[in-house]
Amino acid sequence: MDRARIEKLLRRVRAGRTPVRLALEELRSLPFEDVGFAKVDTHRALRKGFPEVIWGAGKTAEQIVGLIRVYRRHGHAVLATRVDPDKAGAVRRQVPEMKYDPVARMLTLRPGPWKRVGRGVVAVVAAGTSDLPVAEEARLTAWLMGSPVRTFYDVGVAGIHRLFRSGPDLQRARVVIVVAGMEGALASVVGGVVEAPVIAVPTSVGYGANYGGLSALLAMLTCCAPGVAVVNIDNGFGAGYLAAVINRL
Amino acid sequence: MDRARIEKLLRRVRAGRTPVRLALEELRSLPFEDVGFAKVDTHRALRKGFPEVIWGAGKTAEQIVGLIRVYRRHGHAVLATRVDPDKAGAVRRQVPEMKYDPVARMLTLRPGPWKRVGRGVVAVVAAGTSDLPVAEEARLTAWLMGSPVRTFYDVGVAGIHRLFRSGPDLQRARVVIVVAGMEGALASVVGGVVEAPVIAVPTSVGYGANYGGLSALLAMLTCCAPGVAVVNIDNGFGAGYLAAVINRL
Amino acid sequence: MDRARIEKLLRRVRAGRTPVRLALEELRSLPFEDVGFAKVDTHRALRKGFPEVIWGAGKTAEQIVGLIRVYRRHGHAVLATRVDPDKAGAVRRQVPEMKYDPVARMLTLRPGPWKRVGRGVVAVVAAGTSDLPVAEEARLTAWLMGSPVRTFYDVGVAGIHRLFRSGPDLQRARVVIVVAGMEGALASVVGGVVEAPVIAVPTSVGYGANYGGLSALLAMLTCCAPGVAVVNIDNGFGAGYLAAVINRL
Amino acid sequence: MDRARIEKLLRRVRAGRTPVRLALEELRSLPFEDVGFAKVDTHRALRKGFPEVIWGAGKTAEQIVGLIRVYRRHGHAVLATRVDPDKAGAVRRQVPEMKYDPVARMLTLRPGPWKRVGRGVVAVVAAGTSDLPVAEEARLTAWLMGSPVRTFYDVGVAGIHRLFRSGPDLQRARVVIVVAGMEGALASVVGGVVEAPVIAVPTSVGYGANYGGLSALLAMLTCCAPGVAVVNIDNGFGAGYLAAVINRL
Amino acid sequence: MDRARIEKLLRRVRAGRTPVRLALEELRSLPFEDVGFAKVDTHRALRKGFPEVIWGAGKTAEQIVGLIRVYRRHGHAVLATRVDPDKAGAVRRQVPEMKYDPVARMLTLRPGPWKRVGRGVVAVVAAGTSDLPVAEEARLTAWLMGSPVRTFYDVGVAGIHRLFRSGPDLQRARVVIVVAGMEGALASVVGGVVEAPVIAVPTSVGYGANYGGLSALLAMLTCCAPGVAVVNIDNGFGAGYLAAVINRL
Amino acid sequence: MDRARIEKLLRRVRAGRTPVRLALEELRSLPFEDVGFAKVDTHRALRKGFPEVIWGAGKTAEQIVGLIRVYRRHGHAVLATRVDPDKAGAVRRQVPEMKYDPVARMLTLRPGPWKRVGRGVVAVVAAGTSDLPVAEEARLTAWLMGSPVRTFYDVGVAGIHRLFRSGPDLQRARVVIVVAGMEGALASVVGGVVEAPVIAVPTSVGYGANYGGLSALLAMLTCCAPGVAVVNIDNGFGAGYLAAVINRL
Amino acid sequence: MDRARIEKLLRRVRAGRTPVRLALEELRSLPFEDVGFAKVDTHRALRKGFPEVIWGAGKTAEQIVGLIRVYRRHGHAVLATRVDPDKAGAVRRQVPEMKYDPVARMLTLRPGPWKRVGRGVVAVVAAGTSDLPVAEEARLTAWLMGSPVRTFYDVGVAGIHRLFRSGPDLQRARVVIVVAGMEGALASVVGGVVEAPVIAVPTSVGYGANYGGLSALLAMLTCCAPGVAVVNIDNGFGAGYLAAVINRL
Amino acid sequence: MDRARIEKLLRRVRAGRTPVRLALEELRSLPFEDVGFAKVDTHRALRKGFPEVIWGAGKTAEQIVGLIRVYRRHGHAVLATRVDPDKAGAVRRQVPEMKYDPVARMLTLRPGPWKRVGRGVVAVVAAGTSDLPVAEEARLTAWLMGSPVRTFYDVGVAGIHRLFRSGPDLQRARVVIVVAGMEGALASVVGGVVEAPVIAVPTSVGYGANYGGLSALLAMLTCCAPGVAVVNIDNGFGAGYLAAVINRL
Repeated sequence: MDRARIEKLLRRVRAGRTPVRLALEELRSLPFEDVGFAKVDTHRALRKGFPEVIWGAGKTAEQIVGLIRVYRRHGHAVLATRVDPDKAGAVRRQVPEMKYDPVARMLTLRPGPWKRVGRGVVAVVAAGTSDLPVAEEARLTAWLMGSPVRTFYDVGVAGIHRLFRSGPDLQRARVVIVVAGMEGALASVVGGVVEAPVIAVPTSVGYGANYGGLSALLAMLTCCAPGVAVVNIDNGFGAGYLAAVINRL
Repeated sequence: MDRARIEKLLRRVRAGRTPVRLALEELRSLPFEDVGFAKVDTHRALRKGFPEVIWGAGKTAEQIVGLIRVYRRHGHAVLATRVDPDKAGAVRRQVPEMKYDPVARMLTLRPGPWKRVGRGVVAVVAAGTSDLPVAEEARLTAWLMGSPVRTFYDVGVAGIHRLFRSGPDLQRARVVIVVAGMEGALASVVGGVVEAPVIAVPTSVGYGANYGGLSALLAMLTCCAPGVAVVNIDNGFGAGYLAAVINRL
Repeated sequence: MDRARIEKLLRRVRAGRTPVRLALEELRSLPFEDVGFAKVDTHRALRKGFPEVIWGAGKTAEQIVGLIRVYRRHGHAVLATRVDPDKAGAVRRQVPEMKYDPVARMLTLRPGPWKRVGRGVVAVVAAGTSDLPVAEEARLTAWLMGSPVRTFYDVGVAGIHRLFRSGPDLQRARVVIVVAGMEGALASVVGGVVEAPVIAVPTSVGYGANYGGLSALLAMLTCCAPGVAVVNIDNGFGAGYLAAVINRL
Repeated sequence: MDRARIEKLLRRVRAGRTPVRLALEELRSLPFEDVGFAKVDTHRALRKGFPEVIWGAGKTAEQIVGLIRVYRRHGHAVLATRVDPDKAGAVRRQVPEMKYDPVARMLTLRPGPWKRVGRGVVAVVAAGTSDLPVAEEARLTAWLMGSPVRTFYDVGVAGIHRLFRSGPDLQRARVVIVVAGMEGALASVVGGVVEAPVIAVPTSVGYGANYGGLSALLAMLTCCAPGVAVVNIDNGFGAGYLAAVINRL
Repeated sequence: MDRARIEKLLRRVRAGRTPVRLALEELRSLPFEDVGFAKVDTHRALRKGFPEVIWGAGKTAEQIVGLIRVYRRHGHAVLATRVDPDKAGAVRRQVPEMKYDPVARMLTLRPGPWKRVGRGVVAVVAAGTSDLPVAEEARLTAWLMGSPVRTFYDVGVAGIHRLFRSGPDLQRARVVIVVAGMEGALASVVGGVVEAPVIAVPTSVGYGANYGGLSALLAMLTCCAPGVAVVNIDNGFGAGYLAAVINRL
Repeated sequence: MDRARIEKLLRRVRAGRTPVRLALEELRSLPFEDVGFAKVDTHRALRKGFPEVIWGAGKTAEQIVGLIRVYRRHGHAVLATRVDPDKAGAVRRQVPEMKYDPVARMLTLRPGPWKRVGRGVVAVVAAGTSDLPVAEEARLTAWLMGSPVRTFYDVGVAGIHRLFRSGPDLQRARVVIVVAGMEGALASVVGGVVEAPVIAVPTSVGYGANYGGLSALLAMLTCCAPGVAVVNIDNGFGAGYLAAVINRL
Repeated sequence: MDRARIEKLLRRVRAGRTPVRLALEELRSLPFEDVGFAKVDTHRALRKGFPEVIWGAGKTAEQIVGLIRVYRRHGHAVLATRVDPDKAGAVRRQVPEMKYDPVARMLTLRPGPWKRVGRGVVAVVAAGTSDLPVAEEARLTAWLMGSPVRTFYDVGVAGIHRLFRSGPDLQRARVVIVVAGMEGALASVVGGVVEAPVIAVPTSVGYGANYGGLSALLAMLTCCAPGVAVVNIDNGFGAGYLAAVINRL
Repeated sequence: MDRARIEKLLRRVRAGRTPVRLALEELRSLPFEDVGFAKVDTHRALRKGFPEVIWGAGKTAEQIVGLIRVYRRHGHAVLATRVDPDKAGAVRRQVPEMKYDPVARMLTLRPGPWKRVGRGVVAVVAAGTSDLPVAEEARLTAWLMGSPVRTFYDVGVAGIHRLFRSGPDLQRARVVIVVAGMEGALASVVGGVVEAPVIAVPTSVGYGANYGGLSALLAMLTCCAPGVAVVNIDNGFGAGYLAAVINRL
């Protein structure tokens, strides 16, 4: 490995087999992460079962297949987001063992059995049925990264009692993801009643002054309840990933 | 009046004292409202005790005093909004009987005792203490127009139980005004639990992604609870006026 | 019912059949609305003939059919908005008794004969022929909720006399809905001549600086005539719903 | 003049006194307008009594005085816009013959008596009293450029009958300027009833969703009445200038 | 006519055949424009050869055919804008004498031979070939309304000499329309060199920070050259209409 | 307390001293949180040493003092954000034991000695010196809530090596807060190299296309590194609060 | 040429064969660039091998073919951008020697062998694989204009070590183009480590708060590293062109 | 230096005085730039006479003085931007040898005599007198970095001949900076006539639809002339810096 490579170089210098000038040159050309940062971190992440992720929206089926093959060669889990059914079909014709979730629009592959990494449970709270694709993307991501997940769907603030009915269960979650479009008020209400950190995901569900999710995004950012942070519009993956990261602390 | 003026003209035509050509000319020049619309409506509104309103933000103390004098000459109530304390002082030095509410920033004068016009009670629900100036502008306007008002202040969604504690009282209101800044989620929650029409007032309370009230405005416009309509940012007057109009139906 | 359930629990406590500790536990787990809020309110609304509403834009025909069946089982009226003709056809192949209005793009079903609930008449004023889908959505919603409706179509401000010709009729309305795209000026003009509350609906009709309805939305929000409130862009349903709520006061 | 200068050069070439090479050099270095465009146009404009204009907002009193002195040396009229009272005082202490209009916030100086250039009358229609500074800037500019002006102030659409009362006078205008803030609906209404070209000036009068004039700007741009064009927010000068240009056609 | 109708009523009153009370009633119910405004104005406009206009974007072929038939019955010219080729074909199958211009995307019909109404020439200046549909819409509109038109196409500021080459011809125009997308700078340059009023039309030609024409729109509104006003993005019709109105002064 | 109150009521019912009807009434009127939600949660939070928070921006010194006195009476910690020096001085003249941090602009008071609650260390990474007020607000909040904090200031991406020099220390943090204005790129770079959850705080530091923090906000929301969530612009408090919540998991 | 034409005219004047009056007329009608500006510049540019450019997005295959034929007649290179595969096929059926690059979406034709004009190497750095179309447009443009190009693809900041690994090579570039979507942070990081001028190209790659490239655009404009300038969103051509212009200095 | 430090470490390893394990540790902890990147680059930049820059807007006079002292200790040039006169006075009372330019609002100090580094001349073209502060900031920055500068001020497109008069001089510039507010059209016109790379600086000069420089910013980004790139609004420093970087190539 990289650490080994540096160590070997140093031993060669000590043994006089590599002149200082050449060793200096080689050390300068070493990638930064080889002396301790990103690359090692990536490896560690992979060792812990966190999948590499392919953003499927801007890639062809061929590109996705190519990346899948690289990841599999290294024994990694594979997770491709935003893959529409046609593209998923094309990928699976070449890599049939990939699983496809048509609601979450994700292609996934685990190299071994699922292993729990997160200590607690991640709750995924969603306002309406139109928010389900984003909520499911969050749920599947967190689960693949080793977190048990519990879902609370269709509990929008227009009938806030539906949320409160599930109160104690929600209270038990270690991390809460709130997925809501339109006015995004669910994040504020949940943020006001739970103790756990809340990750809010605005969705583009709505029309008119929703402006593709802007109304929910701004509402969640200006949320008056503390303990809430926001990810990009429709970014279920990002919320699930962060929730899993927090849950394994 | 105008109706009389047309009648007189017609009689003169019948009597042959006004030629058809001249009568035609005069009729063409008659203001539209003289034959039945806005002006008469304005008069009717005034007779029902609805005050004329002066938007104080863009006027000098002198201009406000001038308008007050015109309204008083006609025996009208006077209501001037967005008058800061200095301007209010300058006005009251010349028209001492004007009352000034420093929270609502309004100058008011009723020509006689307050008379109830609205059938039910108007509820004014406000999220936080910073929203009080707008909420009080709404309350004072609705009250001056003859509606009893009940206030529910500091019941923001971060502690939504504070709102629910006052539930039955809120349920009894005939019209509900909801005043909230930041994410404006209170309108959705109230809209989900009351039967009465809800008038939502976004306020500019907040910072950053609040964008001067935009976050609350968009959230209220995309509110998933039906029965909610929205007025301009910080427009407490408009909400109070509309609430009073609905309440006297 | 929920009330009955609580009463029964209390009687069991009094009879000593349920220990205080267990009753306390059960009361804590009761959904909020079971002790008096949203759910009861929902039931009351349904009893009064107000239909449950399905937002058809984000649902498949299958999901819509599923929801329709639930509502019908409870004997509720059904109202699905934003259903395009294809989806409507798919739904009606399974639930043939649903009626489809292709202009309003709504699927509706009343469990019994139409019953007037609103006291007065709701006026729907629309600026141009392109605004008709939104205006018809408002009209059909208000009517289904029990309000007689009168329409004033194609009376945009570029030929404002067309509006004034219908003045007295318009004046008689108890609630006025104004539907307009482009510059949305019709709301201001109508707001200036009627005494009734005005619900303004900006539409996305227009191009360029209309920005999908933004020009009309901002114009209506900054309307200089008092007594006007605004709903979301193209939200004919919301306006019709609120008008019916006000009209039954 | 420039034309003369080129002619002289050509004669010198013909007379053999200027070599072709040098003449070529000189012709290349001639400013573009010297052979027929902008500069000559500028001179022509000045000859016709159109004042040079100083945008006072971004200049110090000293810079304004300096420019005034240049224009006066050439016998030009002087027109400085957006000069606040303090700056105006500082300028007039050095150039006492400048006149200052505190409502229009303009400093002006005509080198001779006012001379009518425009054929018809320019109408300036303004919605509210807060729009007067912009309306007066338009009026004064058009008048200084030789157009008689008639004003129709405080005729906003919330009481549209006030506008219609002045109908025939308004109809006689050759060019109409409409100045309005808030929802800017006045431009549409006027555009629907007059035959003359309409120049709409959105103002920044309003608050909240007015967004510094954006609501009026977008409304005027999407105006459904034909024959209307728009200038920048608060740009009374631009409207008055264009009106005068059209009126002298 | 309306005027005739009022006159007749007055004569009947004089003759004693219509009681004053009934006449009063009838006069009150007369549409506003019948006593002098919009409707008469409309008629006058039509008499002068100005076509009624159908905004084709939001209408079906059937609706367009219906309107065409009404206009033709009154002997009016017909002008339908934003009609795509398919819709145009469907219309012409029913009204074959309509002419279709595929670049301007307009359907037109003149009831008689073209008659010059405008005194001077309208210049249409366009920046690039992608702006032609808008420029042609302006040209065709102005021409149908009786104005001779001269076009200056493909003279964008990236090669500004192309514009200057046509200088004298451009200088002779009585009204100038400038059509440009992207940064819209052409309006400023033309506004700086011509004496005639300039109507600027921003187009949605461009990508990225063009934001559907916003860059050109804002640039034209903040144009530093006086004598320029702006119409909506891509609104060739509006520019052509206003140019013809100015040109016939 | 509330639980006790319900228990007492139930016992009274069992004892026959409170009729079922009255008990039912009382239970219905009980605030929701009294049977298990927000209020209890609030109390628990306070017991754990989390301070109540006063948003000082929209309050007078008098209001702040009033709130401080309430919190102190209950033995709570006090934390007031966005208090400028003048207001802080006025508060401290009445409550001298409050501490004021002029960089973080916070007034604080702990009822007892600081007690560590968070397991790991919270890192606060800030891009430039102008971001310090926000960063310090985050640091002080997290610390007051019981988390040890380590700061990494002035490590903006224009000299990214400054960040990398502190790599191992940064890697050890359990939660990382990144505070950056302008282009906000620091969040992406940190998000790419640390394993801990990252809370990104955009600041309004910058000018022009920064648009009051919008550039950093959008950049952080679209951050390509996973594991990053965002709070409102300049919301150091919110980031510190959430970091402390995560750190005590 | 133009210079020759003026010289010839002057000689004719000197020889008395052209009267001064006629020469004056001809000089006035000469396009500006004929006496030294744009046109000559254009010619020079062409002589140096810089291709004329066709913006293919707004043109039909026929229009593109027409322009290609003009350029080829003059022996120019041809470069058409934003040509989708269908349009490219249609063009190549008529002009088969055109080359088409399906990633860069460009049609190109060089009249002779490629000739190096730029002194150094242009580096094209791209963040992700979805940015490749824009990056390749930049690369191909710079190369066609005579600059050697080196690419550094897929080096986004989420794994910034990938960029640093290629450090020395990147450092050697004379001009650096950075292509990135999402948060666009790569421009800041590269701008912080290279000495060469950096041209940043925001791309529309992303979703949600990316707003079609706005997040990257604003981030790059507010970049805290000096030496960076920005072109339009997705404008790979513009970046490649400017890089080549700088590189040939 | 850093290179020396690594070399020394390697020699110690070779000599057996530092065990491999410890050397490995030290190499891992070395800042990235110590093995060849940013820091060395910074030093090189400084050696070449490029000043360190202090962004004065967000700093106190004390902070500025502190930074100045650090830079001077290293013998660096000092350049502080956006320093208002009061702050500049406070700084100069402590560091009297700093020079202050009140138009450019910059504090500067060169450690030795000015030395030309740039090969050609940088042209700074500015549209109006209100743009001078930004233009001067650009000029002074480029000059301090060793580039001769020529200015072309007050040549806005409303009188484009003023620009063309200076054509040949402008053509000789090696890099051109264009500074313009309002519609920013000057960048397009200059970009169309010069061969040199153009750096466009939008300024916030203007009002209304200028939106603090947005109109100029968007116009410059969508500029139809190739060879133009844009820096942040009012960022004269950034343009001057980049121009100097290009000019020394």
